[in-house]
Parts: sequence; C-alpha cells; structure tokens
Amino acid sequence: MDSIFEILMDLPLFQGVSREKLSELIEKTPFHFLKFTDGQPIVNVGDPCSHIRFVISGMAVLETSNYTRRILVCETVSAPAVLAPEYLFGLDTCYPFTATAKGTCGVLQITKADYINILHSDKVFLFNALNILSRKAQQGASNLLAVSNGTIAERLALFVLSLTHHGAKEIVLSYKQKDMCTVLGVQRSSFITAMTKLHDDGAVRFNPTEIIITDRSKLLDILHTEE
Amino acid sequence: MDSIFEILMDLPLFQGVSREKLSELIEKTPFHFLKFTDGQPIVNVGDPCSHIRFVISGMAVLETSNYTRRILVCETVSAPAVLAPEYLFGLDTCYPFTATAKGTCGVLQITKADYINILHSDKVFLFNALNILSRKAQQGASNLLAVSNGTIAERLALFVLSLTHHGAKEIVLSYKQKDMCTVLGVQRSSFITAMTKLHDDGAVRFNPTEIIITDRSKLLDILHTEE
Repeated sequence: MDSIFEILMDLPLFQGVSREKLSELIEKTPFHFLKFTDGQPIVNVGDPCSHIRFVISGMAVLETSNYTRRILVCETVSAPAVLAPEYLFGLDTCYPFTATAKGTCGVLQITKADYINILHSDKVFLFNALNILSRKAQQGASNLLAVSNGTIAERLALFVLSLTHHGAKEIVLSYKQKDMCTVLGVQRSSFITAMTKLHDDGAVRFNPTEIIITDRSKLLDILHTEE
Repeated sequence: MDSIFEILMDLPLFQGVSREKLSELIEKTPFHFLKFTDGQPIVNVGDPCSHIRFVISGMAVLETSNYTRRILVCETVSAPAVLAPEYLFGLDTCYPFTATAKGTCGVLQITKADYINILHSDKVFLFNALNILSRKAQQGASNLLAVSNGTIAERLALFVLSLTHHGAKEIVLSYKQKDMCTVLGVQRSSFITAMTKLHDDGAVRFNPTEIIITDRSKLLDILHTEE
C-alpha cells in the first residue's frame, strides 16, 4: 500500500494532504484503478468528461487536432498527471484529445459527482483544484502577452506551449507542410529558414510533414516566459 | 434590498442560488460594497488579488499591457462582471490589469478567505466557481485551435479575443504602429491592407496608433469560434 499512497500524494489534487486524510478519503470514495496496455485508448476525443482521470503509473500519449483537422499535436505525459481537468466543467465538457497508453499505464478515475464531494469535503482539496484550474486559465493569456516580436519561432512557441503540458515529452506536430505554413501565416521558404535555425539551436527536428520538439524549454526561452 | 439580491443573483458565482440561501450568506459573510467615482482606480496592475471583486453597478475600464509594454489593450466591462477570478489562485496571484471606474461604479469585494468559505459552504457555489475557471482555461486553447489560415485578421482576432472579455465594449489597442506590426509579425503595408478590409467589414476602426474594435463578434466570426 505504501507506494499507492505516495503516488497519490504526488498528484496536484492531493498536495499537502496528510496520509490519514487520504486514507480516510480512499475508504469512503470509490477510487477506480485501471490498467491499460500499450496502444489501448484511455479516452477518445469528444468523450464526455464523466470522471476525473489521473495517470498514476507509466505514460500516455495525448493527441490534439486543430479544428480544421489539418494539424495534429502529439505529446507524451508521464505519471503523475491529470487528464484535462479543465474540461470537467465549463462550456465544453468533452475530452479535447485522445489519450492512449504508452506501455502499461495505470489510471485512477473518480466520477465527477465523487470529485465534487472530495472538493467539498476539505478546503485543501478545494484549494488544490482552484490552483490547477487557475494555472491553466492564466497560461493562455500569459503566453499571448509574452509575444514580443511576432517571429515564426515565437508563433510556433505560442502554439506548442499553449497546447502541450508542462513536462511533456516527445512533442510532435504532424501536418502537410503547406497546412503548417498556412496556420503560421508564413511562406514556405521563411518557414524552412526559421525551422533550420530552431534545429541548429537544438529546439526542434523537422521534416516535410513533422516538427519534433526536442527541447520544450527552449520554446519557453523564445517566448521569454515561464510555467 | 430587492435590487441588491437581483444584482447578486446575476453574478455567475451566485447563479442558481435561492434567495434564502443568498440572504443567509450575506448575514454571515462580510460583503464589502464600495463606490468608485469616475476615473478612480479599483485595482492596479500588480496589486495582490487579496479579494474577489465584482462590478455590481456601472462600468469599469480594464487596461492590460503586453510584457514588452508596447501594446495596451483597453476594454469596458459592465455590471455584472467579476474582475480576474483566475488570478486569486495559481502561479500568479496579482491583477493582470488596471481597472478604473467609468462613471460611478459599484464594487462588491469579499476576502479570499471568505470566498473559500463560500465555495466550501455549498456545492452550488463550488460548481459555479469551477465553471467560471474552466471556461477561462478552455478559452485560450480553443482560440488557438480555431486558427485556420494564419491571416493578419485571424492573428488580431486571436490576440483580442484571448485578452478581452465576452461582452466587453470599447475595446482599443494602443501602440506605436511599428510595434503592432512587430507583434503580429507583418509588414506595414500588409497590416494596412488587412485593417482596411476589417474596417470595410465593420469590425474595426484604426489610425496610426490605435485599433478600435467596433464589433467584437465579427472577430469571433473571423476565428470561426464561439464563447
């Protein structure tokens, strides 16, 4: 049991909660622990967010598509992570991405009703949830306010940083090259020049249909921002 | 007393709350009602978000500056409105804008500790707060995913829609023209052509140092998005 406690206490929702409190919570709340095998879908884009879901072991690949479905953003998140906590409430209550197990992946899920009960049961949980959502809400505006010179590198940084998660690995943008140029609003030649510079700086690798972000933190430097 | 109840029940935080419940809440929680005269600051950028603040009568002008301080985004919000609820918690807990009374403006403020007590006291308040923050958190990503053709009009729409509020009026971007072109990453001539088109479509007015958004909803159409 030791390890389960330690894993849960690493989740942002349970930060600062005592072992006793957590133990009490587990006793009275249905915590569903699921195992997914490599390649198995955890959630599909558009699925209703009926539960809050945490990756508690292993890794998951998240795939988000832009609305024209021309650009696909993939990233790998590692435990401990929470899947789209900002889509349980609000205007849109469906998953904005498909999440797939990468290797064996352990997921904890709690129904939305039980999640509300948890937040209601103790101010520490409530405070943690408000923090998680506020961070997400601040990020969009802060990335946009950080844009200073409108370069292609900055536009790419804005796009990637706003659509992927802090600590995400193996971030890949897939597209037909003309579609990526269209979304960034640039000519193909300028795009290649900018990507070559980013490649030389160790931030990306690229080919005609993909940009692989090799160092996400370099994009933070480009946008002169923090997370 | 009638009107105060009706005003409060219009605030997103108190949606769906019965008059009895609200009356009970007002009795046990210190609600501070303040009046500001025309031009008087309500909060300054960088002030700690020590209270949740609601505009309950009149109007307030919000001024947000980008990080290089080259571009100023102004907007006018009308009661009922809440000032930066996503900055009470999270990474940054200071106001991202200066808010100034426009005419006589009534503000309700509640300390952060009392606000947490309110959210803890009843699931309706909790649910409303989670909804408000989730909407804000979803907005940034959804605007960015809606970008489809990277035009100057889309870039301007992304910037304005992400940094101003639903229902905001008198939205003005102030800058030195070269700075606006820099942030949008465009040549001056293309900028003028794009703004002239937006002007002809009834979305903006512009001069060498300002863009006035005459119809924010036209920017939603440009980005093919909703709020």
